[in-house]
Amino acid sequence: MEREPHINLGNNFPGIRGLMAFREDTAAPMGELANILLRDSIGLTPAERELIGTYVSNLNDCFYCDQSHGEIACIYLDGNRELVDQVRTDYEHADISDKLKSLLNLAGKVQQSGKAVTKSDIAYAKLNGASDRDIHDTVLIAAAFCMFNRYVDGLSARVPADLSSYPLRARQIVETGYGNHILHTKQPGT
Amino acid sequence: MEREPHINLGNNFPGIRGLMAFREDTAAPMGELANILLRDSIGLTPAERELIGTYVSNLNDCFYCDQSHGEIACIYLDGNRELVDQVRTDYEHADISDKLKSLLNLAGKVQQSGKAVTKSDIAYAKLNGASDRDIHDTVLIAAAFCMFNRYVDGLSARVPADLSSYPLRARQIVETGYGNHILHTKQPGT
Repeated sequence: MEREPHINLGNNFPGIRGLMAFREDTAAPMGELANILLRDSIGLTPAERELIGTYVSNLNDCFYCDQSHGEIACIYLDGNRELVDQVRTDYEHADISDKLKSLLNLAGKVQQSGKAVTKSDIAYAKLNGASDRDIHDTVLIAAAFCMFNRYVDGLSARVPADLSSYPLRARQIVETGYGNHILHTKQPGT
Repeated sequence: MEREPHINLGNNFPGIRGLMAFREDTAAPMGELANILLRDSIGLTPAERELIGTYVSNLNDCFYCDQSHGEIACIYLDGNRELVDQVRTDYEHADISDKLKSLLNLAGKVQQSGKAVTKSDIAYAKLNGASDRDIHDTVLIAAAFCMFNRYVDGLSARVPADLSSYPLRARQIVETGYGNHILHTKQPGT
């Protein structure tokens, strides 16, 4: 662990899990929102949704969320970590659909501000095949990560320095989801 | 209404309500989060929580959320609109506690980025009597408004130009909360 939380969390869970265990009643709807929004497969695949979340977390410089959701995307993409890295750094040249590129552009605008989104950004997404629901979900995923990222870094949540812990945790989330029950797994003895 | 939504919402509800009616399954946990976080009175009063949300919405230049939550704060403050306005523009000289001033400073940092929060911001809040839970709630309120504001403006939600509609709606929320049932009130014929 590279940093200590700004408040006494009363637990040693890493990342957002430590914050969610501190106050479980606010954690429940946040977990539910992530579950509904990121594991949906209408219009956008879970892989695409996780790539949008990873991209926004990267823009927000939130190491924990960036690593966590990048690993989840990687599992959905059959281990193609190079693709996840390219979405982070240069999505325009990544081997992804033009639709997803146009939605990553939109997500990047939302990361700056809701007001940064222009009619051109929306028209570009529609031109590339994005439905109203795809646009809605992209804006909400980007907005939700602007919350999650600020929650994690604004309270200086613990961040595992050991990168091998992220793929293990990602596998659990892919298998069982973001439900509130994730809080009740065994607490690490760190 | 001064602007049209970026997508066809299929309803005429103003502000975030129009977006929430577009996708009710994601709306439910967002309404629940607002309900738990803003109507709580442990450590911080509902008035203080709404002032933090209003302040962050103002920083994010989200007119709809700024007006909506400012009016809710105003009701809790027995109609003291001058105080709400001063918190928006110059909270350092507002007639509020030093604790709330230190938490508004913290919320302003979170609005910029989670990483903008310094150990000094936290120490200043604790020195002024903020508990760990107060700090947690302030960071999460500020982070949640960074989501709500981006959701509203990123999709260009309808914004009532008639300012008299905000106090009416604020009164409903103070009386009945942010629950998902708010979606099922009569749709305006605009």
